[in-house]
Amino acid sequence: MNFKCLAVALAISATSAICYGQTSQPAVLDDFKPSTVNQPGQEYPQVNSQGYARFRIMAPQADSIKVSLGLGGRGGTRLTKGADGVFTGTTEGPMDEGFHYYHLTIDGGVFNDPGALNFYGSTRWESGIEIPAHDQDFYALKDVPHGNVQQILFPSKSTGTSRRAFVYTPPDYGKDKSKRYPVLYLQHGWGEDETAWSNQGHANLIMDNLISEGKTKPFIIVMTYGMTNEIKFGGMRNFKIDAFQTVLTDELIPFVDANFRTIADKAHRAMGGLSMGGMETHTITLNKPEVFDYYALLSGGLYTPAEFTGKAKPKLIFISCGSKENPTGVKKATDALKEAGYNAVSFISDKTAHEFLTWRRSLHELAPMLFNQ
Amino acid sequence: MNFKCLAVALAISATSAICYGQTSQPAVLDDFKPSTVNQPGQEYPQVNSQGYARFRIMAPQADSIKVSLGLGGRGGTRLTKGADGVFTGTTEGPMDEGFHYYHLTIDGGVFNDPGALNFYGSTRWESGIEIPAHDQDFYALKDVPHGNVQQILFPSKSTGTSRRAFVYTPPDYGKDKSKRYPVLYLQHGWGEDETAWSNQGHANLIMDNLISEGKTKPFIIVMTYGMTNEIKFGGMRNFKIDAFQTVLTDELIPFVDANFRTIADKAHRAMGGLSMGGMETHTITLNKPEVFDYYALLSGGLYTPAEFTGKAKPKLIFISCGSKENPTGVKKATDALKEAGYNAVSFISDKTAHEFLTWRRSLHELAPMLFNQ
Repeated sequence: MNFKCLAVALAISATSAICYGQTSQPAVLDDFKPSTVNQPGQEYPQVNSQGYARFRIMAPQADSIKVSLGLGGRGGTRLTKGADGVFTGTTEGPMDEGFHYYHLTIDGGVFNDPGALNFYGSTRWESGIEIPAHDQDFYALKDVPHGNVQQILFPSKSTGTSRRAFVYTPPDYGKDKSKRYPVLYLQHGWGEDETAWSNQGHANLIMDNLISEGKTKPFIIVMTYGMTNEIKFGGMRNFKIDAFQTVLTDELIPFVDANFRTIADKAHRAMGGLSMGGMETHTITLNKPEVFDYYALLSGGLYTPAEFTGKAKPKLIFISCGSKENPTGVKKATDALKEAGYNAVSFISDKTAHEFLTWRRSLHELAPMLFNQ
Repeated sequence: MNFKCLAVALAISATSAICYGQTSQPAVLDDFKPSTVNQPGQEYPQVNSQGYARFRIMAPQADSIKVSLGLGGRGGTRLTKGADGVFTGTTEGPMDEGFHYYHLTIDGGVFNDPGALNFYGSTRWESGIEIPAHDQDFYALKDVPHGNVQQILFPSKSTGTSRRAFVYTPPDYGKDKSKRYPVLYLQHGWGEDETAWSNQGHANLIMDNLISEGKTKPFIIVMTYGMTNEIKFGGMRNFKIDAFQTVLTDELIPFVDANFRTIADKAHRAMGGLSMGGMETHTITLNKPEVFDYYALLSGGLYTPAEFTGKAKPKLIFISCGSKENPTGVKKATDALKEAGYNAVSFISDKTAHEFLTWRRSLHELAPMLFNQ
C-alpha cells in the first residue's frame, strides 16, 4: 500500500460515514475513470476516487434503465435519459471498495451492461465493476514471475461426465521439474463457479505477488465447481454434501495427485472456501479428517471445539469475514477454539461485506500460514 | 458421425435449398431444444433439428427487440411482444451449422441475450448460439483422456506488460515427465482474442479426440492475443505486423520453450491462424522462415510460389476456407503451389461461411498433417 492509496482510502472512509449517516451528499469529485474490469476499449462504467460509480447506456427508444448497484437496500441506481437517447446516472453515494456484481433492468428485463466484463455469480454471467481498493497492490498484475492457471477436465464416474477444474501452479513449477508442492482446494460461493477465484478473486496474482516477496511457500491451488447437487438453481435448504464430497475426495484429488507434482498427504493438503464453499469446507473437513490438515472458512460459517471431539487436531483453522458481516461471531469462534488448544486464526476484512475484496484479503492472509508446520 | 446426425444434416441441407431459393417456407418442426452454449439452466435461445433458432426475451416495458442473427443480409430477426411482456421470435429460415455470434438490439441499444453464454468477438463479449453440426462428434466432450488448457502470463518488454496466452498441453503431458513436444502457434481472428480457440473453437477437445483415436501426434498449442497494434479497435487498413511479430517470435516463443517441454526447433514448430490470424501467419512465416516449418491459413489469405523465392521450402502449407467463402481461390492457390513443388494442401468446409465451424473442421484436418515429416 502506498500513501496516495491510503489517502484515497481515508477519503472514501470519511465520505462513507457522511453518506450513510445523513441524507446530505458530499460533492462528487469529477475524476471518473473507466472501471478496470470494463470490456476492452469501453469508457463506461466509470468510478471516481471517492468510490462513486457512473453508468452510461445507449438505448434511444427505451423508457427506463436501472442499475442494480447502489447503496445497501435502497434499490439501486435509476438512470436518466438524455435528449441524445443515452441513459446516464451515478450511484447516490460511494460504494464499498472492491469488486461488485451488478446488472441492468431495461424496461423491466434483466440484461448486462455492454461496457463491463461479465463474471459468473448468481448462477449467471453478470456485469462486474471494480472500486479501486486502497490496498489493491496485493492483487495487482506486476512484473514478477507468474504462475499459470490451467483448465483441467477430470473423469468423474459419480456424475458420469468429465468435470472442469482450474489449477494454479506457482511460477517455479515449470522450472524445477522434480519439485513437489502442497495443494489448497479452494471453493467458490453459491451461484458462482470454478472460474470465480481466478477471475474476480485474482487468486493467481495474490499468490504470484506473495511468492515474489518471499511471504508464502509456493503451493498449488485447485478450484472446481461445488454445486454438484440439487441445490444447483435452488436455495441452500436441501443442501447435501455427498455428491460434491465424492467428486472432490474420490475423483478430483486422486486425479490431481496423479497428474501434478503434489505432495500427496494430509499434512500438505488444505481446504478452504468462501460462503457456500466455506460450508462445504466445514462439512467435508469434518467428514474426512484424514484428507486435509489446514481448514479455512471465508465468510462461510464457523467451527466449534465440540465438532472435533474424537478427531485429530488440524494444523490450522482459519476463519474470516468482512467487518460488515459477522466479525464478533468469527472472533468468538476462534477464541473458543484457541482456548480448547487449537491453532485457530481469525481475520476481519476492514469495511467490506459479503463480497470478493473480503475473500481476496482472506486468501492473502491465509496463504502465508499454510503448509508451514 | 452417426447416421442419425447424417439424416438431420440432409434434412437441413434440403431445407436450406428451399429456403434460400424461394420465399415460401417449409414447416418449422416443433422440436426446439436449448442451445448447447446457453448459460446454465437457461431454456432460451433454442434450436430445432432443422437449424432454426428461437429466442425469448423478457422485457415487459420494451417496445422493440431485434436479434442480429438471421438469414444473410436480411437484417436479423425481429421479435414479437406477447401480452405477457415476453418477446419471442424464430429465424425466418434455418441457420448454417455451427457457432454464431449475435446480439440483441433493445429499443435501439445493443445488449447480449441473458440466456446465452458470451464469447469474445467483434472486440467485445457477444452472445453465442450453436446450431448442432452433423459432424459435431469430432469436437464433442467425450470420456477420453483430456489435455489441459492453461493461462500463462509472459513478460513482454516490447509492450511493457505481462501478456496472456493459453497453452494446450496434450493428455500425456503430465504423465511422462521427460517427453518433449512440437508446438503449434494458433491465432484468432479480428475482434477475437486468445480465448477464442478454446472457447468457441474447442481446439482442446478436437485434439483430445484426435489423439485418443491415434489420428494425430500429441503436440502443444499456444494461443495469444494478436491485435497488438493500432488496428485494435479500428479496421485492417493500417495493419502493421511488427508489434505482434516481436511479441510472438522474440518474447512468447522463448518463454514457451523455457517453461514447457517443447522441441525447440523449426521442424517442430507450426504457425496457423484464422481470418486476420491467417494474414498474420502469412506475413510472419515469410518474414521469419527460420522459425516455423508448418504454415496454415484458415479463411485468412493465400500463399503464392513467388513469395517463397530464395527461401527454404516449408514442410507443409495448409490453406482452407468455408465453401461459402472463396473455395476456388483456395484450390487454385494450392494447385499452383503443388505445381511449383510445394507440399500444399487445401481443405474446404462444406456449407459453412466465415465462421467457427469452418475453423474447427480446418484444425481437425490440419492436426494430423503436422509434425509428421
